[in-house]
Amino acid sequence: MPELRKDPIVGRWVIISTDRAKRPTDFARENVKLKGGFCPFCYGNESKTPPEIQAYRPGANGGPSSQRDTPGWTVRVVPNKFPALGIEGTLNRQAEGMFDRMNGIGAHEVIIETPDHTASLATLPPKRIEDVLWTFRDRILDLKKDRRFKYILLFKNHGEAAGASLEHAHSQLIALPILPINVVQELEGAKQYYLYKERCVFCDIIRQETENGSRVVAENENFLTVAPYAPRFPFETWILPKQHESAFENSSSQDPTNDHYHWHIEFMPKLTKTAGFEWGTGFYINPTPPEEAAKFLREASVEEAVPATVG
Amino acid sequence: MPELRKDPIVGRWVIISTDRAKRPTDFARENVKLKGGFCPFCYGNESKTPPEIQAYRPGANGGPSSQRDTPGWTVRVVPNKFPALGIEGTLNRQAEGMFDRMNGIGAHEVIIETPDHTASLATLPPKRIEDVLWTFRDRILDLKKDRRFKYILLFKNHGEAAGASLEHAHSQLIALPILPINVVQELEGAKQYYLYKERCVFCDIIRQETENGSRVVAENENFLTVAPYAPRFPFETWILPKQHESAFENSSSQDPTNDHYHWHIEFMPKLTKTAGFEWGTGFYINPTPPEEAAKFLREASVEEAVPATVG
Repeated sequence: MPELRKDPIVGRWVIISTDRAKRPTDFARENVKLKGGFCPFCYGNESKTPPEIQAYRPGANGGPSSQRDTPGWTVRVVPNKFPALGIEGTLNRQAEGMFDRMNGIGAHEVIIETPDHTASLATLPPKRIEDVLWTFRDRILDLKKDRRFKYILLFKNHGEAAGASLEHAHSQLIALPILPINVVQELEGAKQYYLYKERCVFCDIIRQETENGSRVVAENENFLTVAPYAPRFPFETWILPKQHESAFENSSSQDPTNDHYHWHIEFMPKLTKTAGFEWGTGFYINPTPPEEAAKFLREASVEEAVPATVG
Repeated sequence: MPELRKDPIVGRWVIISTDRAKRPTDFARENVKLKGGFCPFCYGNESKTPPEIQAYRPGANGGPSSQRDTPGWTVRVVPNKFPALGIEGTLNRQAEGMFDRMNGIGAHEVIIETPDHTASLATLPPKRIEDVLWTFRDRILDLKKDRRFKYILLFKNHGEAAGASLEHAHSQLIALPILPINVVQELEGAKQYYLYKERCVFCDIIRQETENGSRVVAENENFLTVAPYAPRFPFETWILPKQHESAFENSSSQDPTNDHYHWHIEFMPKLTKTAGFEWGTGFYINPTPPEEAAKFLREASVEEAVPATVG
């Protein structure tokens, strides 16, 4: 069972995987093999992952076209085979002298975005991308029922520099029993702004960026894509719904909402190394002004999406 | 002139290097060449760095043995040739609509720790390591006179994974016109603990770790080296002065001090990749429990320090 431990100075929690202790020499071998070899996310290998949690299996008549844990799916969700947190048990909050700990309870799932080993989310047909987004929503709505969880993060590590360990296109979901420090800061910051201005800070950003234009990457009826004013990383990019919506999973519903938080997607390309200065201060040095990044991305040619070949 | 920009949601400042805009393809070529080639930090190449700020040149009679910007030094401090911040000018704080910016004013210095290209700080003779630490102190005391600066970070990127761009042993110093977000959090956290307990949180950690022993790596009369209870990274290690001292540069002086902050050195080995989960939450997954790391480090054999060969 992994353990959650809290730093007594800044209040930051960390996950300690107590069952896989590692010596320094173990890490050198950890370099990821992204190419070739066996892939547990391809058709026919469904038995090599833990049993699926859900899948989209669009049949010819609208019904499911195949049995669970067999081929025929277009999006498939499975528990992570090497989860950072354990799904079973209670938190059992405890003191260890002056320190605080609890059991590492949480959900860690993998969303396999396509059966096509060589496809990427960016080149899937729009309908398939939509299905991936609906799957994200399904999983959040399901896990929100579990009262042990306080926060759910959906993330995608694309490419080796970003920490991907398998080539086949997939996202991950982690549900946590506590609110992480970055999320607390973002919620607190948004709330303070709202208390002061009685406006959502993200809505204000959308208004100013739309008027100014220099950091806009793309825009359609419902969404704005911008390079943020103070990006940590070169080509950092956000997608925001133009209409105020506090939660992704509640989009176009009457579910509980608030006026100060505004859901969005963040892209953080890993082109530069994070080093001593950044780790020591939380300050970032970004060699690419967002105005230049936005201009480059606006002018970039986009490859035509091709139908995914399944098999 | 670089620019400092503030994220309006979390209040995080970033340094935008407006004079070296970069396209995504520019980064691929950035891989560091640590081996071979010309080294600006070796004897005889003093003219290839900006003019030195200070140097230790221990002569036979206690006096300086050589002229500035010539060989004969044991520790040498120069401005960074590619500074993240500019030393000249005023902050010129400004609004840009709802956003906040100021000029990227600050100091960015390089401390060349030895003239020996192949030496590392860890294997220098103790007297030479002491000189490097005295140099850190000299530079902090000097830069503290500049009223534009609010914070000074000393850091060392060791090895390519840590972001080092030159092989020759060196540290860096950055003086900033604002308190970075991580520092604010650490100071705030330490202050809250003090207000609640009327004790320094670091002093409490030292007491509990000394009694418990499982996370102690090494100890002498004045310092304790521990694996922290909630480390972000495998083999993260802290060195703390056992006596309460709020600032490194004031050690053993009667200078202004406070009761809640306690200076220390942090080591963050870069053995694992920081990926989407960590960037999204500020939560870290650490596969090596600190008790295992401390045990490994206690039992590690230490190479005997050899006198540095200069030349």
